[in-house]
Amino acid sequence: MTLFDFLDISGTIAFAISGALVAMRKRFDPFGVFIIAFVTAVGGGTLRDVLIGRNPVFWMANMEYIYAIMAGTILTIILRKRLRYLSKSLFLFDTIGLGLYTIVGTEIGIEYNFHPIICIALGTMSASFGGVIRDVLCNKIPLIFKKEVYATASIIGGIAFLVISNYTTNQNVTYVVTSLIVIAIRLIAVRFKLELPSFYTTKQ
Amino acid sequence: MTLFDFLDISGTIAFAISGALVAMRKRFDPFGVFIIAFVTAVGGGTLRDVLIGRNPVFWMANMEYIYAIMAGTILTIILRKRLRYLSKSLFLFDTIGLGLYTIVGTEIGIEYNFHPIICIALGTMSASFGGVIRDVLCNKIPLIFKKEVYATASIIGGIAFLVISNYTTNQNVTYVVTSLIVIAIRLIAVRFKLELPSFYTTKQ
Amino acid sequence: MTLFDFLDISGTIAFAISGALVAMRKRFDPFGVFIIAFVTAVGGGTLRDVLIGRNPVFWMANMEYIYAIMAGTILTIILRKRLRYLSKSLFLFDTIGLGLYTIVGTEIGIEYNFHPIICIALGTMSASFGGVIRDVLCNKIPLIFKKEVYATASIIGGIAFLVISNYTTNQNVTYVVTSLIVIAIRLIAVRFKLELPSFYTTKQ
Repeated sequence: MTLFDFLDISGTIAFAISGALVAMRKRFDPFGVFIIAFVTAVGGGTLRDVLIGRNPVFWMANMEYIYAIMAGTILTIILRKRLRYLSKSLFLFDTIGLGLYTIVGTEIGIEYNFHPIICIALGTMSASFGGVIRDVLCNKIPLIFKKEVYATASIIGGIAFLVISNYTTNQNVTYVVTSLIVIAIRLIAVRFKLELPSFYTTKQ
Repeated sequence: MTLFDFLDISGTIAFAISGALVAMRKRFDPFGVFIIAFVTAVGGGTLRDVLIGRNPVFWMANMEYIYAIMAGTILTIILRKRLRYLSKSLFLFDTIGLGLYTIVGTEIGIEYNFHPIICIALGTMSASFGGVIRDVLCNKIPLIFKKEVYATASIIGGIAFLVISNYTTNQNVTYVVTSLIVIAIRLIAVRFKLELPSFYTTKQ
Repeated sequence: MTLFDFLDISGTIAFAISGALVAMRKRFDPFGVFIIAFVTAVGGGTLRDVLIGRNPVFWMANMEYIYAIMAGTILTIILRKRLRYLSKSLFLFDTIGLGLYTIVGTEIGIEYNFHPIICIALGTMSASFGGVIRDVLCNKIPLIFKKEVYATASIIGGIAFLVISNYTTNQNVTYVVTSLIVIAIRLIAVRFKLELPSFYTTKQ
């Protein structure tokens, strides 16, 4: 197992737990909880694969993702009473997932020889669109369109990844530095309550 | 026309009627009613085809699906006053559709040599995700995440399909037994008001 | 740059502006505004490409679309106070986009040798499903399912496109006449408040 694989599976479990928690708060049944955990964990990467024509989508060819999501879901259901007190560790998991999936998506874009802007878009999509699909299925406005520096951290991480790749051929260095940048931006933004400004016109 | 084809088209009409009824209750115009009937009927199978890279999606290559959905939509609009009194027959149609689409999806998974878990997931997706897309487009929380044994019947049907396939090479037997299992589970669950338990944490 | 290319980019900018305005009314942050502008502009065409297996989707291979959407988004944010007074010109832009995207989608269907009904469906999808995805992401019931002659104008435009193509080999004539038909239907429908009737059953 390479560092890349390890990070990939850790990100999947982290996102699955965060999805399962949202679904349980909405009082979904276990099937619903699993599906929301599933789309939160692999929804962004699935959209990425479908848009670039990478068939079948990644989690169909490699059962590890499904096992990781099942483990995350069952763990969340069992530990549901303790997880309330653990919202900080969950926030951390979700942030780690954000960093890791950004790397996975950006790297796939490079592999397919896409324009750098598309590579960054694929990284951001992989990292943050699972949460968008989760919110749509839970009938909520996607959180990342309104609050917190979330996708922004992923965009900056994608840019960093492309820049760092130019200076080193050591992939592990690129992975670690990029994840740390994404995680640091998000932690700082939440700590100091930084938000992007919003511009709005009058309601029609 | 084989038994498989017949079941396939019957399931499509059944789901189209159930979608059209939901859209009419939301006061959609005829275009909206048709689109909701359409996504309810073929949305799950379309998602399945897109995820496994089966292009173009099934209803583009074979016009029978579109004709079946048009027929189901027009029928529902014409008979709208009587259908109120027919909710039991509609429930039956929807349940038949659930059984048939489970078979279609699972079989495609086997044909593509996917892992058994993926085959079952494809069957469940084909059978129940049209309803998820219908609910999202109608701005409702997807019914199957909260109530009733619906997707669960499909999952058990998929498992049964794989098991039965090992014991007989007569496809018609496999089709009929699997549909009957799915339909029986759903009828029993609704008759005795069985639901999956839900686990929830405090609201944040 | 051909007439076709020019119309294509103009339609993209028009739809991006209309999406950005909806997102700003929902108080999204700049990232959210860009994403909504993006899906409004290219969501329909992306769905079309994914369903027919045209990979990677069009805006990944040609950066002009992303630049056009960025320009439209920034323009909308800068001019947000004036655009209120410009709702008529925005309506016009959106209507032009509707006409142009209908043509693009129908033409791709013909190129892929699909059945005429599928070609019309691809045109309508390209032209109006960006707005459906926009509304789903903003947690609203898609406008086009309930109000105004919108998708209907696109369907009639698609039929016109197929008919006119039989009588002339001059593509520019086909493009211009089809756009004018779509635009005229929509303008007339809005001017005289024409709507499709809705049929509804009692609420359950």
